[in-house]
Amino acid sequence: MSKFIVSPKKGVPFVSVEAMAALIHEHGVEQTITELTLALEKDFARWEAFEKISRIASHSKDGAIELMPITDGDMYACKYVNGHPINTKRDLQTVAAFGVLSDVDTGYPILLTEMCILTALRTAATSALVAKHCARQDAETLALIGNGAQSEFQALGMKAVVGISKVRLYDVDPAASKKVVENLADSGLDITICNSAEEAVEGADIITTCTADKKNATILRDDMIKKGMYLNAIGGDCPGKTELDANILRRADHVIVEFEPQTRIEGDIQQLEPDFSVTEFHHVVKGNKAIRSTADNVVVFDGVGFASEDFTALVYLRNLIEEKQRYDVLDVITQQKDPKNLFSVVKGARQDSAVEAFDVLANA
Amino acid sequence: MSKFIVSPKKGVPFVSVEAMAALIHEHGVEQTITELTLALEKDFARWEAFEKISRIASHSKDGAIELMPITDGDMYACKYVNGHPINTKRDLQTVAAFGVLSDVDTGYPILLTEMCILTALRTAATSALVAKHCARQDAETLALIGNGAQSEFQALGMKAVVGISKVRLYDVDPAASKKVVENLADSGLDITICNSAEEAVEGADIITTCTADKKNATILRDDMIKKGMYLNAIGGDCPGKTELDANILRRADHVIVEFEPQTRIEGDIQQLEPDFSVTEFHHVVKGNKAIRSTADNVVVFDGVGFASEDFTALVYLRNLIEEKQRYDVLDVITQQKDPKNLFSVVKGARQDSAVEAFDVLANA
Repeated sequence: MSKFIVSPKKGVPFVSVEAMAALIHEHGVEQTITELTLALEKDFARWEAFEKISRIASHSKDGAIELMPITDGDMYACKYVNGHPINTKRDLQTVAAFGVLSDVDTGYPILLTEMCILTALRTAATSALVAKHCARQDAETLALIGNGAQSEFQALGMKAVVGISKVRLYDVDPAASKKVVENLADSGLDITICNSAEEAVEGADIITTCTADKKNATILRDDMIKKGMYLNAIGGDCPGKTELDANILRRADHVIVEFEPQTRIEGDIQQLEPDFSVTEFHHVVKGNKAIRSTADNVVVFDGVGFASEDFTALVYLRNLIEEKQRYDVLDVITQQKDPKNLFSVVKGARQDSAVEAFDVLANA
Repeated sequence: MSKFIVSPKKGVPFVSVEAMAALIHEHGVEQTITELTLALEKDFARWEAFEKISRIASHSKDGAIELMPITDGDMYACKYVNGHPINTKRDLQTVAAFGVLSDVDTGYPILLTEMCILTALRTAATSALVAKHCARQDAETLALIGNGAQSEFQALGMKAVVGISKVRLYDVDPAASKKVVENLADSGLDITICNSAEEAVEGADIITTCTADKKNATILRDDMIKKGMYLNAIGGDCPGKTELDANILRRADHVIVEFEPQTRIEGDIQQLEPDFSVTEFHHVVKGNKAIRSTADNVVVFDGVGFASEDFTALVYLRNLIEEKQRYDVLDVITQQKDPKNLFSVVKGARQDSAVEAFDVLANA
């Protein structure tokens, strides 16, 4: 049994968007990302404990729907996530996600949650963690190219965990950059809006590319990359969706990936030969591989997002809501007295209850 | 866009256990299974429209957690389902399931629902549909071996769709059989509890095996099977879990499966050579293959449950709740005004709202 003590008979703990927003607002975005970074580091250090598969994607004309299952033998996590860059033109999210955490021993869900916000947090935490290990220790300026839904989380993560103090923004949509400036007005970060990607990367120690178009783009050209730069390239994350000039990858001293089989399919390295040398990040965490031998090294993190990061985030959230005793309980698994008597649930149902306001949620 | 008109901005329609029980109680189990059978028949007839993969299973000591994704290019469905036979000893369900139906065009969920009850209904409907096509037309007696959570649904499906009027029950747990008798007291079925599987199959036209042990069992021996019998073998559904004497499969005139690649791994035919001849059911629905050339044929349905059946059930349910205007709406996808401004959801959250009773559900 997992360590969580809520009886599966009592329903499934549930975190709605509103509950997540309030929880993170109170706990603090930087605090949450910092704690997540520590949790991620611990889970990357026990990489072998996880049963790992590439995510299962169903591609359509304008997007993809993906499942990201993983287990450590004690708990099982799965995220449902789409990626539809076209959605912003419809006033919808590019990414709409929810997730489940389950107890392997019983197979019962022990958490259902929104994962739009949680994914932004875990992606920012992963970016910050990899940067902490692979960027220059004295990094202080972040170029943030692509100022969509993830950007504020990315900037705050790099501030809290890596210590950057300046942010240079660029987006093809100026309103997106303006939104970041407004959202981060009280963050203590020194923020500049730039007119081009070239201008944004001037003097940057860390460059985050976080664009959403489903195409092979060249957000960064090779000539824009200077000695010692660290690239956090997280927008190229599905087949046919890349952000970097292939020459950047070729001349980088190290290309860091999460789970190599998945990144070969989805990452910027899909542009390169299948045996192009990369380093899985868990080796870096475990100290098996020195990445920054000199301050001049160019290092690229070809981040696509891996299921283990969602696992870490779901376990972290499950702990957080238990610690704060703040969650609802969702009536989504039958709980009749005799498990073999499923029929009794239907037979004994009140005929009128489907039209009432259901008591499907009860505060813990 | 799918035909469902609820705006994704309004949240995700949700069917709780209580709502499902009330809905099915009112609509009627036999009526629901009958309608589901028609929907299944239509979807099996357009088999080629589906992007099909075997379910993705994560096995552990006492069970499995599985994902069953599928799409027809218009909608996408995925069921989360476990199978832990040991759970009944812990007063928990063997199977706890929930599912999602999504719009492929936007990637947004358009239904989240309990699937413990829905799975029992779709499994009964699938069994009834295959039997309608493959059992003798004059079948009137059903032997039901294994009287757990699925049994009442199975019996009512065979009554409503195939026209059986007599049921002979057997289970190693006599209380389970007694429960079926009590639950079906008003069903109009003539029900007998038997002392052995041998006794139960005497005079049966259709034999349903629906046992749960995760092992290679022999619920039916070859000598128990007479001319003209139809076997609905649905309990053997994962690697190392079978119910039939292999000789029954060898001497059957036809062995029907749902999706051959998955059944090779999970079905009773896992006991046989990989090229053992089977017939995918969609061929039968489409009239490509005559199954019952004489009344003496022995036909086996090696049913394991396939994702397309859940797809059908989810679309059926989505239609039903829309028609009856009976569902809740779950706050699980962020809905802020500017899709790129995800940060605003956290920034603007009310600090105290996480401790209140959330308004995560609103009746439609």
